[in-house]
Amino acid sequence: MRPQAAIAGVGCTKVGEHWGSSVLDLAVEACLKALEDAGNPDVRAVYVGNAASELLNEQGNLAALLADVLALEGVKAVEIRAGDASGALAFHQACLDVAVSGEGAVLVCGVEKMTDVLVPEVERIGMLFEDARCTFHSGITIPGLCALLTKLYMSSYGVDYEDIVLFAVNDHENASRNPYAQYPFPIKPEAIVRSPLVADPVRLLDTPGVGDGAAAIVISPPGEAREAGGEPVLVLASEVASGRMNVCERDEILSIGSLRTAARRALEKARINVKDVDFFELHDTTSVIGILALEDLGLAEPGGGWRLVKEGGIAIGGDFPVNTMGGLKGRGHPWGATGVYQLVEATWQLRGEAGDNQVDGAEVGLAHNMAGLGSVSCVHILARGR
Amino acid sequence: MRPQAAIAGVGCTKVGEHWGSSVLDLAVEACLKALEDAGNPDVRAVYVGNAASELLNEQGNLAALLADVLALEGVKAVEIRAGDASGALAFHQACLDVAVSGEGAVLVCGVEKMTDVLVPEVERIGMLFEDARCTFHSGITIPGLCALLTKLYMSSYGVDYEDIVLFAVNDHENASRNPYAQYPFPIKPEAIVRSPLVADPVRLLDTPGVGDGAAAIVISPPGEAREAGGEPVLVLASEVASGRMNVCERDEILSIGSLRTAARRALEKARINVKDVDFFELHDTTSVIGILALEDLGLAEPGGGWRLVKEGGIAIGGDFPVNTMGGLKGRGHPWGATGVYQLVEATWQLRGEAGDNQVDGAEVGLAHNMAGLGSVSCVHILARGR
Repeated sequence: MRPQAAIAGVGCTKVGEHWGSSVLDLAVEACLKALEDAGNPDVRAVYVGNAASELLNEQGNLAALLADVLALEGVKAVEIRAGDASGALAFHQACLDVAVSGEGAVLVCGVEKMTDVLVPEVERIGMLFEDARCTFHSGITIPGLCALLTKLYMSSYGVDYEDIVLFAVNDHENASRNPYAQYPFPIKPEAIVRSPLVADPVRLLDTPGVGDGAAAIVISPPGEAREAGGEPVLVLASEVASGRMNVCERDEILSIGSLRTAARRALEKARINVKDVDFFELHDTTSVIGILALEDLGLAEPGGGWRLVKEGGIAIGGDFPVNTMGGLKGRGHPWGATGVYQLVEATWQLRGEAGDNQVDGAEVGLAHNMAGLGSVSCVHILARGR
Repeated sequence: MRPQAAIAGVGCTKVGEHWGSSVLDLAVEACLKALEDAGNPDVRAVYVGNAASELLNEQGNLAALLADVLALEGVKAVEIRAGDASGALAFHQACLDVAVSGEGAVLVCGVEKMTDVLVPEVERIGMLFEDARCTFHSGITIPGLCALLTKLYMSSYGVDYEDIVLFAVNDHENASRNPYAQYPFPIKPEAIVRSPLVADPVRLLDTPGVGDGAAAIVISPPGEAREAGGEPVLVLASEVASGRMNVCERDEILSIGSLRTAARRALEKARINVKDVDFFELHDTTSVIGILALEDLGLAEPGGGWRLVKEGGIAIGGDFPVNTMGGLKGRGHPWGATGVYQLVEATWQLRGEAGDNQVDGAEVGLAHNMAGLGSVSCVHILARGR
C-alpha cells in the first residue's frame, strides 16, 4: 500500500527548564515553527499528545486551547493520553485522520512542562500511568522498576553496570551536537557510575532529567506535501501495540512485548527488514531499556545488546545509529513531547538536515516511543520522499 | 460516501454512586456487555474516553490498562482526553481507525468515576478543562458560567426561569423509564425552582449530579457487523469542531459555535436535513445549554428554544424528541462516559429496543457531546441499518 501520510513540516523548542513559559507557550512555539516549515498551510485538525498537564500545570483540554490560541476556531481538536507514549500516539491518530480524509493539513504537537512541580511529584505522577494496584500503592517508581530490570539483566547475562551505561554515553555524545538538547555535552561512563544512586544500581546520570519541551509536525497527504514545496518525509508505517502492563506479569521480563509486536507489524507494513533501517530513535527510559530495545528489534541477540553498544554499533558511524540527536537521556524526556521529538529528529535525518549528526545516506528511520515500561508501544517507520 | 463504520454491540452500567467499584471495574463491566452484545468478536483496538482519572482515581493510562485486564495483550490501546467530550471523541477516533483498516472490531469505552473525591474537588477539576487563565484562577465554575448564560438568556428574551427548567423536567420524565439512569424519577418544575441555589439563578436540580458510569460500543465495518448477526446501526457522520474556549470571547454569547460547525458538517456528510432526524441526544450541562442547542441545531429560532420545550416539542411523542433516556440531568453525566452513553441510547432507539421510551419509527438519530461550554463539540448521526 502506498503511504497515505507525509511530514510536511517540523519544529521544536529546546528541551530545558523553561521557567518563563507556560505549557501552552511551549506548544505554540513548536507549532508556529512547524507551520512555517510546512509553508503555513491551512490546518483542519490539531492533535496534542500530553501526559499530565492537569497535574503538572493545572490546565487540561490542551488541544482545544491550542486551536483557540492559534486562531484555528472550528478545526477538529483531539488530545491523546498514554503517559510518555502520548506524543507518538497523537501522531498515529493524526495519520489515521489524514488517511481517511485524503486532504488537508493536520497539526500534531507533543508537549510537556514538567518543572512546574517538584521532582518527587513528577515521580508520583509518572506512576499513575502504571497499574496503581501493583505499583503506585507500593511506592515503587519508574527508576525503581528500571533498577530491577538492570539488576536482572546484569545477573542473567553477567554484565557490569559500567558496560550498560554506555548506552547513555552514546546519547550524550549525540546530544552534544544538538542545539535543542537538554544536556548538550558528552559524559564519561566513570561519571555516570560515580553519580548519586537513584535506585540500586541505577545512577542519576543514567536517568532522563526533568525537562520542559514541545515538538510539532504538520502531516499532509503525500501529494499535498509535495506541492507545498520541499521534499516530504513519508510515513511508511505507524503501528501501536499494548503489552502486559505489570513487568512482573510478563512471560519474558527482559523483553518489551509491545515493542516486539508493534515493530513486527510496522516492518511488515513497510515491507523492509530491520537491518535495512538506517537509524533508530529509541525510548531509553534508562540505559538497560535502550539495550532491551536493541534486542527486541533484532539488532542484537538477547543478552547481546550491551556488546553492540560497547563495540560502537549504535554510534552515528556504526551499523545501527541510535538516538542520533540524544535520545531520552541527552535530548531530554518531556513525557508527552518525546515521541514527537523523535519524529522531528528523524525528519531532520531523512532531509539531510541533521548537521554534524547526519547519518550518511539516511533513507529510512525507525522510532519507538512507549508508555512507562511498555504498556503501549508506538513504532513509526519514516522514509525520505522521492 | 457509504458509511464506513457500524455499531455492532453496546453496553453500559447504571449511572450512580458505585462505591464498590473502581474506574477500571466500571469500564470492564460495560465492555463485557458490549462485547457480548456484538457476539464476542476478536478486538484489534481499544479506545477509552475519560476526562480525569488521574485526578479522580489516581490511575491513568486507562486504555492500556483496560486492554490488559480484558486479556487483549497486543491490541492497539488509545486514550482520548477532552473533558466531558472525551467519550464521543474516542468514538470518533475509533471510527477513523475502522475506516482506515476496513476490517476487525474496535472497542470504545467511555468511563468516569467521580465519587472518589468530594464535590468541590469535582468542580475544581472540571475547571481544568476551561482556559485556566480566564476562569480557573478567578474561581468561577461550570455551573457559574451556566448561571451567567441563563441570566443573559432570560434578560435577552424575556423568559422566566420556571420556563427554562422545563428542559430538565423532560430529561427526568424520560429517565424515569430508563433502568440505567442515575435519577429514574420525574420531577416537577416547582421542585427545581425551590431546590437550593447553586449559582443564581441556577438551582441544584437544574444541574447534573456527580455520578459514576461506563458505556461501551463495539464498532466494525458495516459488512462485518452484519455477518455477526443482528442489525447494525450505521455511523452516517462523525464530526468534531472546536470553538472559542472562553465564553466571553465569543461573537455570539448565546450560541455554541462548535456545535453549529460540527452539526453543519455532519448533516452535510449524512446528506440529511436536521428536521428529518427522528430524535436527539443533547449535552445539557444545565437547562439553558440544552435550549441553546435546540436553537443552534435550527430546531427553534434564537430565543425560541424554551417555547419548543414548553409546547412539548421535545417529548418522546413530540416533533423532535430530545434526551430520550434522560440526558445529562436524568441519566447522569459521568464526564468521559456521557458521549458514549448517548450513542448507546441512540443505538437502542434505532434497534427498537428503547422500551417505553421508544420513538416510533426511529430511523435516524443525532447526538451532541461537548467539552465544557463548547470548546470542542462532537456530532454523530446514526441510522438504522437496512
